[in-house]
Amino acid sequence: MPAKPCTLEPAPFPGVTLVGGGPGDPELITVAGLRALLAADVVITDRLAPQELLAQLSPRVELIDVAKVPRSRFTAQSDINALLIERAADGRCVVRLKGGDNYVFGRGFEEVQALQAAGIPVRVIPGLSSAVAVPALAEIPVTHRGVVHEFTVVSGHLPPGHPESLVEWTSLAALRGTLVLMMAVQNAGAIAETLIAGGRAGDEPAAVIADGSLPTQRTVRTTLARLAEAIVAERIGPPAIIVIGEVAAL
Amino acid sequence: MPAKPCTLEPAPFPGVTLVGGGPGDPELITVAGLRALLAADVVITDRLAPQELLAQLSPRVELIDVAKVPRSRFTAQSDINALLIERAADGRCVVRLKGGDNYVFGRGFEEVQALQAAGIPVRVIPGLSSAVAVPALAEIPVTHRGVVHEFTVVSGHLPPGHPESLVEWTSLAALRGTLVLMMAVQNAGAIAETLIAGGRAGDEPAAVIADGSLPTQRTVRTTLARLAEAIVAERIGPPAIIVIGEVAAL
Repeated sequence: MPAKPCTLEPAPFPGVTLVGGGPGDPELITVAGLRALLAADVVITDRLAPQELLAQLSPRVELIDVAKVPRSRFTAQSDINALLIERAADGRCVVRLKGGDNYVFGRGFEEVQALQAAGIPVRVIPGLSSAVAVPALAEIPVTHRGVVHEFTVVSGHLPPGHPESLVEWTSLAALRGTLVLMMAVQNAGAIAETLIAGGRAGDEPAAVIADGSLPTQRTVRTTLARLAEAIVAERIGPPAIIVIGEVAAL
Repeated sequence: MPAKPCTLEPAPFPGVTLVGGGPGDPELITVAGLRALLAADVVITDRLAPQELLAQLSPRVELIDVAKVPRSRFTAQSDINALLIERAADGRCVVRLKGGDNYVFGRGFEEVQALQAAGIPVRVIPGLSSAVAVPALAEIPVTHRGVVHEFTVVSGHLPPGHPESLVEWTSLAALRGTLVLMMAVQNAGAIAETLIAGGRAGDEPAAVIADGSLPTQRTVRTTLARLAEAIVAERIGPPAIIVIGEVAAL
């Protein structure tokens, strides 16, 4: 008996569905997420969402890229919340599509709170976080039996010591587990210095994965001490995922 | 223009495809994972894989549950590796389907290493890890702007102080971020005590989510000090995810 295709039906939800789009490959969205997209009247997205998924949307769908509306990339979260509420108020099926997962540095919960306060039905369909999926696609397991039984995912969008940073890098330095840094390309040098000052070995393996899951994906293997140098030498720009720990050398 | 269904074609890959099945809801597999399953000649799985996906497999597929083959639940990883190699050796499309993600306490990398050593083509399709997806489905974001910019995922399958444990619970206690414990139901009391002894507040919010993503999903909100008591009182058994941190009370 030959293998057979399967049909996915649109799954309409009047209100707002937050969909995690995964790391970028359009096939790394969930089945539930794709079914929500198939039923969407409005899709509200930004530059980190899988672009190929957007290209596949039916022409009947109103597509709003919040990075392109007036005020551009600086659209405030409150403006996005207002837009979600406004578009869903008349019972349309609105999908808020983002890259990765909505709740891993995605501000998804802020949107849920705003929608609930406005009485708009809201549901969440998780997505593959790049923190775990991108290392996997680069053949780096964030855990490995006998090597490491924990991993920490941390945002590096602020450098260590920044007054608004909520991250205690010294505590992270003391961990034995894998560290996965997101949004850390710009601050990688300062972060590596702080981790080494906190006790991590300079020759601890590190890897940088750029454009994870896309055809342009590439991986640079290095060490913690040489991390910033490798990023410059290999001309790595965002988005990239940095993995620090023994697993980066397996 | 009405919403239209979409057709997914089988995506054959002679060799072994490791597919992360996600937390349990059959729609929380990725599109790529489902396409691999549609093309599978053999599916090798265990009791943590989404059971409803297995029920949907074509009758032409050889389904092997490694929890049910002789030696039962105690099938050694080396036996599973040998089975994967044997079934894929003649060019069939073998899918290794697990719950969650293959690389988050899934031993996936051990299988990849064994297959590569045997010269069998292997690819990995990441899955939604319950560590992130299950809290999201229980309306708990693992990160939240202004509250927490890091989270740590740790296996609690061994109690603190166990000679084989690779986890330094004292270092984890010193972290400011969200802690997500997997496989920790049995050891929750000992872990909570160790975290409190390490400096975490006993009244820190905690949540336990059982059967995440399934129709039987339920959430118990408690505190770190009362975690073990709550698990007993609410009769929570594995599989369950434990979240410790401010986000558990949002």
